[in-house]
Amino acid sequence: MEAAKKGKILIIGATGYLGKYLTEGSLRLGHPTFILVRESSINTNSEKAKVIKDFKDAGATVLYGDLHDHESLVKAIKLVDIVFSTMGHEHPEQLASQINIVSAIKEAGNVKRYFPSEFGVDVGRIQLLEPAKSVLGIKVKIRQAIRMAGIPFTFVSSNLCATYFLSRLGQVEGDGTPKDEVSIMGDGNAKVIFVCEQDMATYAIKAAEDPRTLNKILYVRPPANIYSQNELVSLWEKKTKNTLRRTYLSEEEVMKKIQGTPYVVSFVYAIAHACFMKGELTNFEIDPSMGIEASNLYCEVKYITVDEYLDKFI
Amino acid sequence: MEAAKKGKILIIGATGYLGKYLTEGSLRLGHPTFILVRESSINTNSEKAKVIKDFKDAGATVLYGDLHDHESLVKAIKLVDIVFSTMGHEHPEQLASQINIVSAIKEAGNVKRYFPSEFGVDVGRIQLLEPAKSVLGIKVKIRQAIRMAGIPFTFVSSNLCATYFLSRLGQVEGDGTPKDEVSIMGDGNAKVIFVCEQDMATYAIKAAEDPRTLNKILYVRPPANIYSQNELVSLWEKKTKNTLRRTYLSEEEVMKKIQGTPYVVSFVYAIAHACFMKGELTNFEIDPSMGIEASNLYCEVKYITVDEYLDKFI
Repeated sequence: MEAAKKGKILIIGATGYLGKYLTEGSLRLGHPTFILVRESSINTNSEKAKVIKDFKDAGATVLYGDLHDHESLVKAIKLVDIVFSTMGHEHPEQLASQINIVSAIKEAGNVKRYFPSEFGVDVGRIQLLEPAKSVLGIKVKIRQAIRMAGIPFTFVSSNLCATYFLSRLGQVEGDGTPKDEVSIMGDGNAKVIFVCEQDMATYAIKAAEDPRTLNKILYVRPPANIYSQNELVSLWEKKTKNTLRRTYLSEEEVMKKIQGTPYVVSFVYAIAHACFMKGELTNFEIDPSMGIEASNLYCEVKYITVDEYLDKFI
Repeated sequence: MEAAKKGKILIIGATGYLGKYLTEGSLRLGHPTFILVRESSINTNSEKAKVIKDFKDAGATVLYGDLHDHESLVKAIKLVDIVFSTMGHEHPEQLASQINIVSAIKEAGNVKRYFPSEFGVDVGRIQLLEPAKSVLGIKVKIRQAIRMAGIPFTFVSSNLCATYFLSRLGQVEGDGTPKDEVSIMGDGNAKVIFVCEQDMATYAIKAAEDPRTLNKILYVRPPANIYSQNELVSLWEKKTKNTLRRTYLSEEEVMKKIQGTPYVVSFVYAIAHACFMKGELTNFEIDPSMGIEASNLYCEVKYITVDEYLDKFI
């Protein structure tokens, strides 16, 4: 009976990288789950069509629409209580198109909570190098538009995705865990926070109807997952009984990397610079008037620890 | 009688920096001119309200609407033949929101020519440092969307705005023309192209119904306005009878500037780097299957030369 009372959740971007985790989490936690897809995704993209079919089979309701068709967006939003959007940084113009969701939610008038595409660093406070500065500046603008429109929100700051950052021990480039040599950012002593994608989704979905997270930033800081890069490398060395040669990347070298690599890589260098070199994820206490911590709020969640996560690569 | 036959032009962004020049140009060249404004601009922004009133007094028709309200956009577009949008790079999310204009033009079905926000470097070919790379990548995406939608277009590549670049003799920072010292990018020998904003607008409006510019890039390369930074400084020295001390900025120093200045400045450094250091504006011949040159096409336009422009600072 409890499931029937749970709020209806719409995921916009359900076939994308984080959208898949959130849709799976919404279904797993018993929410009536809706996904907004473009008809063209079914017809022209067999990979997306497969994901959509799997979600449908798992109980999700598929709605057809388009971010750039205001009417279809309002219609979809009117069916639900909670809206998530999950646009990646790979396409800054998609991040920006969330402004259409803000407009549609405002017009629809029924939404109890909106989760815009965040799920990373706290864009409201982090100091970033380009190109991350201007691209994540778009998320800041979306936050402003949500607040201006008076839409109830939660911004999820779930720190570093394990898949991207943990499997390479914090290195931006390279395939998987290092064998002989590992590149350390700065002195390697700044503390960062890793969160597995499925745990991020669990916390976010749990927050969807929680009054304690209303109009707050939900920071995900699982205590067992706070490591410096040096500590992380040492843990890996202990597990593999193999010592890695550590090389250190200076700030100047990072700047050159940023200018010399394609946008998708340079963006990650700028994020890694802020987190691993400047300690921007952990250099502040959570202000309780602005934010709240997830692993403490939902202590029943058995999150995947860094230690457990690394075991699967051995 | 000629004026009556001229196509109806809609300017989206008419109160912005380049939008003002284009609206003024459209009125001056006798086009029935429409501007799309948000009602909130009238009520909450007295500066914009003044601009709108002046355009109305000069004969423009004011339409109320919003980029994020599909219906209002389609309605406005259905009234005209030609659409210009003039979003600046200062707000990447506004550049991206042009995708809504593409959708609306596609739905309206009546537009004979669309000029998206370009009016600078040729984003389809230029090699850029961050943050310009990712921000102007949005313009590339808009070009793709226009082509995919089969919308008739002209992309105006009018090179460097005189106001930004010429008044400081190519320097990114500083107030006005230099007194004692001038900072040169690289060796100062790459040729760049300066275009005054009102001339850009004249060429763009002239191209609006010209079959020769249909589905083409309109490059504005006025022969008298092609200078290297060294030549520009020498011209200024000759005019002022004062020799400036030249300092030279290396590529590494530019990269540091990019990372150490706010986005609005770092963006301009990245543009200046491509143009003044790498010669990206003049290192190619115009491919006649892709583009056409404006000052040659409209040789009747008496454009403002660099020489004339600099005289007003003496």
